[in-house]
Amino acid sequence: MESSWIHVQEDSDFSLQNLPYGIFSLKSEGQQGRARVGVAIGDYVLDLSALATAGLFRDVTVRATVLKTNSVEKIGENGTSADKAAVLADSSECTWPLDTSVFSQPTLNAFMASGKPSWQAIRKRLTQLLANGGDPILKDNAPLKRLALISACETKLHLPADIGDYTDFYSSREHATNVGTMFRGKDNALQPNWLHLPVGYHGRASSVVVSGTNVVRPRGQLQADPSDDKKGSVYGACRLLDFELEMAFYVGGPPTALGRPLTIEEAEEHIFGFSLMNDWSARDIQKWEYVPLGPFGAKNFSTTISPWVVTLDALEPFRCTSSAGPAQDSPAPLSYLHDKDYSTGSYNVNLEVGIQTDDMMSASVVSRSNFRNMYWNAKQQLVHHSVTGCNMRPGDLLGSGTISGQDSTSYGSMLELSWRGAKEIPLSDGTTRKFLKDGDTVKMRGYCQGDGFRVGFGECDGRILPAGSEDLVLSAQPFTTTFKPAYHTLKLHGCRTSNSWRVRICLHLKNIPFSCLPDIAPRHAEQSGEECGEMNLLQLVPTLEVSDTTGGVHVLTQSMAIIEFLEAAFQGSYPVLPSDPLARAQVCQISEMINSNQITLEIMKSSGNESELTCRQHAQVLTEKCCAALETIVGDTYCVGDSITMADTYLIPMLYDARRCEANLDRFQKLLNIEAKCANMAAFQAARADVQLGAFA
Amino acid sequence: MESSWIHVQEDSDFSLQNLPYGIFSLKSEGQQGRARVGVAIGDYVLDLSALATAGLFRDVTVRATVLKTNSVEKIGENGTSADKAAVLADSSECTWPLDTSVFSQPTLNAFMASGKPSWQAIRKRLTQLLANGGDPILKDNAPLKRLALISACETKLHLPADIGDYTDFYSSREHATNVGTMFRGKDNALQPNWLHLPVGYHGRASSVVVSGTNVVRPRGQLQADPSDDKKGSVYGACRLLDFELEMAFYVGGPPTALGRPLTIEEAEEHIFGFSLMNDWSARDIQKWEYVPLGPFGAKNFSTTISPWVVTLDALEPFRCTSSAGPAQDSPAPLSYLHDKDYSTGSYNVNLEVGIQTDDMMSASVVSRSNFRNMYWNAKQQLVHHSVTGCNMRPGDLLGSGTISGQDSTSYGSMLELSWRGAKEIPLSDGTTRKFLKDGDTVKMRGYCQGDGFRVGFGECDGRILPAGSEDLVLSAQPFTTTFKPAYHTLKLHGCRTSNSWRVRICLHLKNIPFSCLPDIAPRHAEQSGEECGEMNLLQLVPTLEVSDTTGGVHVLTQSMAIIEFLEAAFQGSYPVLPSDPLARAQVCQISEMINSNQITLEIMKSSGNESELTCRQHAQVLTEKCCAALETIVGDTYCVGDSITMADTYLIPMLYDARRCEANLDRFQKLLNIEAKCANMAAFQAARADVQLGAFA
Repeated sequence: MESSWIHVQEDSDFSLQNLPYGIFSLKSEGQQGRARVGVAIGDYVLDLSALATAGLFRDVTVRATVLKTNSVEKIGENGTSADKAAVLADSSECTWPLDTSVFSQPTLNAFMASGKPSWQAIRKRLTQLLANGGDPILKDNAPLKRLALISACETKLHLPADIGDYTDFYSSREHATNVGTMFRGKDNALQPNWLHLPVGYHGRASSVVVSGTNVVRPRGQLQADPSDDKKGSVYGACRLLDFELEMAFYVGGPPTALGRPLTIEEAEEHIFGFSLMNDWSARDIQKWEYVPLGPFGAKNFSTTISPWVVTLDALEPFRCTSSAGPAQDSPAPLSYLHDKDYSTGSYNVNLEVGIQTDDMMSASVVSRSNFRNMYWNAKQQLVHHSVTGCNMRPGDLLGSGTISGQDSTSYGSMLELSWRGAKEIPLSDGTTRKFLKDGDTVKMRGYCQGDGFRVGFGECDGRILPAGSEDLVLSAQPFTTTFKPAYHTLKLHGCRTSNSWRVRICLHLKNIPFSCLPDIAPRHAEQSGEECGEMNLLQLVPTLEVSDTTGGVHVLTQSMAIIEFLEAAFQGSYPVLPSDPLARAQVCQISEMINSNQITLEIMKSSGNESELTCRQHAQVLTEKCCAALETIVGDTYCVGDSITMADTYLIPMLYDARRCEANLDRFQKLLNIEAKCANMAAFQAARADVQLGAFA
Repeated sequence: MESSWIHVQEDSDFSLQNLPYGIFSLKSEGQQGRARVGVAIGDYVLDLSALATAGLFRDVTVRATVLKTNSVEKIGENGTSADKAAVLADSSECTWPLDTSVFSQPTLNAFMASGKPSWQAIRKRLTQLLANGGDPILKDNAPLKRLALISACETKLHLPADIGDYTDFYSSREHATNVGTMFRGKDNALQPNWLHLPVGYHGRASSVVVSGTNVVRPRGQLQADPSDDKKGSVYGACRLLDFELEMAFYVGGPPTALGRPLTIEEAEEHIFGFSLMNDWSARDIQKWEYVPLGPFGAKNFSTTISPWVVTLDALEPFRCTSSAGPAQDSPAPLSYLHDKDYSTGSYNVNLEVGIQTDDMMSASVVSRSNFRNMYWNAKQQLVHHSVTGCNMRPGDLLGSGTISGQDSTSYGSMLELSWRGAKEIPLSDGTTRKFLKDGDTVKMRGYCQGDGFRVGFGECDGRILPAGSEDLVLSAQPFTTTFKPAYHTLKLHGCRTSNSWRVRICLHLKNIPFSCLPDIAPRHAEQSGEECGEMNLLQLVPTLEVSDTTGGVHVLTQSMAIIEFLEAAFQGSYPVLPSDPLARAQVCQISEMINSNQITLEIMKSSGNESELTCRQHAQVLTEKCCAALETIVGDTYCVGDSITMADTYLIPMLYDARRCEANLDRFQKLLNIEAKCANMAAFQAARADVQLGAFA
């Protein structure tokens, strides 16, 4: 078994054999952190955008057989790809460089769209970089490791994709039989269509949330008398709140065309990877509303997904052997759904569901199931989804349906476990459940067991808040706006100067894309001779050139003016100026104090009236005086209040300069504490002078 | 009645009182045209992005009462906003400038998100600009009118929004009763929940298409024996293809939070406007698949929407009076659904459906209905959609459900019109229909009748292609990729020179955002004196500065090099270099011929060896010689082939220069034809020297 130079516990979900993709930002960056693509390994998250910037994917090429554009494959009368052979004759072998910009994006959609050859090329390269005895370029580069290999506990995980459409299936025979038996009796348990097609319904994409997001117990219409639907309904909180244990996959590859169904042979190319999913269900609301058009408000209040996406390549060793899983022969599926690899079309994934209250130290397991229990596999679901011509887009999410096994301990919902409330399910704290209570956290886990390693899925957790506590859920809900701001091109001149450092930090904190130029563009300097190179924009550094969306260009100088502009122009981004007038004044005061000090030092240096030694001694005295004043007014967490402000972005570069003139900072413990906190944050790290302009390249 | 200086027929859908919003590009721009926001007026489309660029919205301010951020409104136990009064006490009156960047975007989502105060401010301004006796700034500006007021027949209309989620309701009592009677008999026609809540289901967003997109007859699973569901299913083409006459509204305003239901009082603030919708349905596929989770493949093959969105403000005069529309009192809705304005909560919109075959001159009307027939109104649908906590996002689409009236000629589907196939519906060509046939175009229309004007919805059309003709639908399907390219900042220097003109045209053709700078940034020139101003980048114009997503900056010069770069870097954008090697060589040859001529003229001019007169005479001779050579090799449509290529982007600026040196172009009819065609295209217009850098400002 290949092992990694990063320590991975034997029971870790994230072995070298796994390498699942996710979207993360740093906790220290707060709500507006820069979301980018990461890979989980052991207790770390590897920042792929940092690896791309450092050039570690530069030599990765993608190799694939590509169909010529005009060879639209015809679907035969029976729904299979009749002219497959003819099409392949039109294809040719191509290679192309990997597009690494996908790793800087706040969703996996672009990477998902890039297609299987890209996914495989990246997986191969990551294995090289992380395996013992592989390419040592990451292992041996300490600064890059510090930047790119982040302790998982410092990261915040986001939804992996912008989900265009979410669909949920109903593909476990045991689950469908259990539910059917309860509501229609054993003889009519399965509906007539169930063995002929994977029954599914369109779900709500907007309410799919990432693990860790609280779930408010829904209110809605309940039957006034559950045994008599003629009695109408009342408004109230759901009384039969339930989980559903599911797995779900993301669609990958280029978007398919409307009116062009996928064939079973093509399906796997369009499956990017799997996550765990909790399809929360309000059983009493569902019972009243779902006739005749299916579940609606009973499902759309929340659907929780685990943040890591495990690829098919990672799952490959855990394909079912032909003896495992259900048979699919009575009736045999129609041709378009016939999967000749059916017996190996699912995966051996151990699944469990636990319930944990605030008083419990760990979750009490209520169900143990396995993904191989599915009757219809993912390929069949995808093909049936597109059979009438529905187009599929990268990032679409398709849920398996509740995964129940044959044994009553393997049922995937409280509805089945408690048999519609007839049985009490015991928890480890001595209490019991028929359905879920407020304060319960439902935890789903899943993993494939290899020889000495695991390929696991991480956490899929959600805690139930009481009905009506919608204000509590807000802070937990990540929200990314996709609207373009009015200013769309920012160019920062003077990126190597410490004066522009403050602005860089703010741009990174605010997650505003910008390009950073040295004092003067190299090409211009070269063309126009040293004189013009000397022009140097000295008083103009930092200079921000701003193009608005109408093509107008605006040039701003002075760091404070620039930062105030950013604050006003990019509303909704991380705020560096408090809205409270007093706090804002404190921030400006500290910033101006620091600014005055820095200007004094600069004038002193450039006057040339003193020797270098005297100059440095003067600088020490002035800086220590300034620090002493600051030490008396800064807060205990950051310069002002409990979050980063403009003042902190002034302080950090100043302390850097202070060390260069050998000032003694030991007695400024509050300043040093602030500095230490900031040093861990991605925005501050990305803005450092030594990582500018391809320092790693 | 206020009238417009633009001629509007009395029966036009698009009166001054309407002003519906849509997304359009120019047909001449082809598949990759620049999609932006327009408003329909008479036979024209008004380009709002052009008005914004020209500064016509500069003084528009938005005025609104804004709640303070932290005043989260509590929802009372009965689902109404209990603490409304307390919240309003926390609010304050604000004004802010309008963000006009929303009009350059390829969807209405950002404008929809901007909220009702913005919608109303823009509507007021547009009325001023278009009304007789209003602000004459547009009326009197001929070049701006040419640019911004586009004949509707030259435009191509796109989907108005990036639809996050699409939901369809089932809210016409007559429709639900008809369908229920057919399948369950008259006594059980309405399900027990129907009068208590607006029944709805989640639909498929990816397959919502704009009017004019062909619809392929779907294939899928049909019952082997429709009278016996135990006989299983067969694969085949849908035999009972149907339309459903619906209206649909787009959600507007800021996204709502998950877990925070909307109240009936808030609902209208979150309704942007209405379109017509054809919810195509495969009745036989639906009958087999829909138990128990609702319609799936029977609906997700296509849903057609009309391209114009009519706002609530335009519909306001057509609110139902209290006597029109159904009563809603038996039972009365629960408090959270109780709309005190129920009787005026819908609109008097005349609706009709026609079927037209290729042999017919016009559509044969098969149904006449009215939107006021709805039992549940849009506000109630929106509130019920969010009652369990589902979050709503701007751009979400909510369909009304089939709109049937009481009269059998007002039924909104063939299922009802033909009463499940029992009746033949006659068409004007002497044929009859029970369901739809291949080649049928279904046309839906709708309008409100005012006194001497209409507020109408435009076209909602779709033509049925035979099953299996998926290759024919491809070209009709607009597709916009939302992935960021690897290069995200482009800055073009030298925007006032004719040399950069070629590059500007290509950038506009390719719809690549860029900022355009004069030869040298004015600020720099001012700061560094004339000398540095003279530096002037003479050999460097055009210069393209490209920032990649990793922050690296690349400087490119020479127009051909730049255009080749754009071609390679922005794959999927409008191609200006043919993929066929020979055609590509022709394009390059013409471009190089033009280039050589222009360089010769430049060197001649700058050498100063000749008088201005001699110089001009020489230029005439050289240019006419070049044109004569070109005239022999260019094609009949464009320089090369049937679409715009790089060669055309060289030709147009050259002909401009030729006129400046008074060359006689009369005998170069092919060149002049190409020039005339290009002159009408938005990309060429936007690149012209006189519209650069706020020429209208």
